[in-house]
Amino acid sequence: MTDAAAAALALIKPEVRAQTAYTLDAPASGTLRKLNQNESPFDAPETVKQAVIAAMRDEPWNRYPPLAPTDLLERLAARHGWVADGVLIGNGSNELIQATLAVTVGAGTPVVTPVPTFSLYRLLAAVLGGRHVPVPLTADFQFDLDALVGAARAARAPLIVINSPNNPTGTPLPEGAVARLLAETGALILLDEAYQDFGGPTAVPLLRDQPRLIVLRTFSKAMSLAGLRFGYALAHPAVAAEIAKAKLPYNVGRVTLAAARAALDAADGLAERTRAVRRSRDLLARRLSGIPGLRAFPSAANFVLIRCEARPAADVFHRLVREHGILVRDVSGAPGLDGCLRITAGTDEDVEEVARALQAVLA
Amino acid sequence: MTDAAAAALALIKPEVRAQTAYTLDAPASGTLRKLNQNESPFDAPETVKQAVIAAMRDEPWNRYPPLAPTDLLERLAARHGWVADGVLIGNGSNELIQATLAVTVGAGTPVVTPVPTFSLYRLLAAVLGGRHVPVPLTADFQFDLDALVGAARAARAPLIVINSPNNPTGTPLPEGAVARLLAETGALILLDEAYQDFGGPTAVPLLRDQPRLIVLRTFSKAMSLAGLRFGYALAHPAVAAEIAKAKLPYNVGRVTLAAARAALDAADGLAERTRAVRRSRDLLARRLSGIPGLRAFPSAANFVLIRCEARPAADVFHRLVREHGILVRDVSGAPGLDGCLRITAGTDEDVEEVARALQAVLA
Repeated sequence: MTDAAAAALALIKPEVRAQTAYTLDAPASGTLRKLNQNESPFDAPETVKQAVIAAMRDEPWNRYPPLAPTDLLERLAARHGWVADGVLIGNGSNELIQATLAVTVGAGTPVVTPVPTFSLYRLLAAVLGGRHVPVPLTADFQFDLDALVGAARAARAPLIVINSPNNPTGTPLPEGAVARLLAETGALILLDEAYQDFGGPTAVPLLRDQPRLIVLRTFSKAMSLAGLRFGYALAHPAVAAEIAKAKLPYNVGRVTLAAARAALDAADGLAERTRAVRRSRDLLARRLSGIPGLRAFPSAANFVLIRCEARPAADVFHRLVREHGILVRDVSGAPGLDGCLRITAGTDEDVEEVARALQAVLA
Repeated sequence: MTDAAAAALALIKPEVRAQTAYTLDAPASGTLRKLNQNESPFDAPETVKQAVIAAMRDEPWNRYPPLAPTDLLERLAARHGWVADGVLIGNGSNELIQATLAVTVGAGTPVVTPVPTFSLYRLLAAVLGGRHVPVPLTADFQFDLDALVGAARAARAPLIVINSPNNPTGTPLPEGAVARLLAETGALILLDEAYQDFGGPTAVPLLRDQPRLIVLRTFSKAMSLAGLRFGYALAHPAVAAEIAKAKLPYNVGRVTLAAARAALDAADGLAERTRAVRRSRDLLARRLSGIPGLRAFPSAANFVLIRCEARPAADVFHRLVREHGILVRDVSGAPGLDGCLRITAGTDEDVEEVARALQAVLA
């Protein structure tokens, strides 16, 4: 590195330089069975694609999208029995994670999260100078509510971020847990329900009485739209107005708006597919539990976490790719996840193939 | 507001609560001549629309977009004689403004910008706890380089953000100005060239020797893609790698990636349209300069700033809407812009209509 480049890097915040960027370790995946990103195994319904393509023909691509697309905000609100001015839309729910952190986290701000969990919470909090307060899940990956309450109170944390069901463990918060966290701490609870369509309770009904609750939902999983990026937040309107200040104007493009509308129109068909994915997830859990040399953890999401006991996880990961053409997610490098792989529940055929392959690799 | 809502708001950072959200004050615009957002007056070319629609039929919407679409990064790099690992793509260049600020600005960090300028720089810096150091343009809206250097040195600012040509004044930085700012300060220069296709020098050739320079470009203006959200940053690869840590993974969706590729394929046709917009901009400036009761400022961008002298700007704005069906941008509320309106250079017909209307309103 030249002196000039070193001088440029010295102007980047040290807390940023200390971080590792979000990465995805995946071989070129043209022909692989792709079970590594918790996507829907089903492409968007043809009715959705056709509706979006028809809209795209007519829309003026040269014009910015609306700053607040009222019709869509109202439909999303109605979907959850909420109010339109308490809905924020984002370029994926990730953008709303980022915006919520940006309006609450500054230098040294404690941010409580269970660990292990989705790595983006910690990364984005660190970029903002926040202090991550990790609260380990129990040995079998259940949420430790006493410890979460204790940590939030001890740190006087303004924010607790929880993913339920939790990525990558699949664990849902138990019924009543969010109400307890709200009652026993003074924190905002950012509850990421990206996987809630697949199982576990939703905290949406609490919104009416709980201005400290922010619920995130995504169209990237059950709604088959990971490729188009759409997510939203539900919150008290006054809180939503503050989060909106950290959200970029015109952040959701015209095509994505059309896709979100079309997906809502197709909600019944998508719900049927979601039920199919839940059945595949249950089948995957059953198949995995019959394989010697691994432990499978119960999951309420569209994936199952396993711990490889007979061989190193990295070996299993690479042999699945090379010998069976199956791509899963190697999460074994994360703290608390030694030996673990995360396997997306795809179609029933995907389930049978990955179970057969794991049996062969671990034999 | 209930006590519970007040308690929730108390958890939002005070520097955020002090801000006003980005807004657009525009009447319902169904039938209006829309000259308020500096968009291209031309929809995306039909070849671009057809290419994107064809791509979307085949793409798996359920799959996340690639984390780093190598082919596109290479094409963007080649477009500017730069290197692919020094290119970052964003959901509009706004996202890259946000990411660059996030990795450089913490509590109290001085951020130097000329004023008046694009309001998002100040808003996003404030959300991050930064301290805005405004450096006024001269009375006729030229950049004051001595003052910029002096302010950056006095504040020991790690970051100077400059928009050239500048929104909403249309002023370009003079030749050599960026080199001087780099030589005479130790700051990173975030140079937003959103409007550079329409005039003024580009600083891209300086990138090779200047790791403290970050250049932003957008497809929302000259490339007719405001509705689909695409922008990019060019920077030293080591600096780009740091900025990437504050950028969301999978931030640019599949449709937008397809649109960016198609727009690059259509670059020649789009360049011809850009020349047409420059001619319209010059025509607009000439027409406006002949109207008594206003002053028009020279512009290198796709808009012209005027100061209304014969009537209050808000009156002129509302009469343009109500009596002539023309929507411009009322920027008269911003510091330094008393009496000012910003008018996008649309087609030649747009120019003639807005000139005629202003003549009538100001008579």
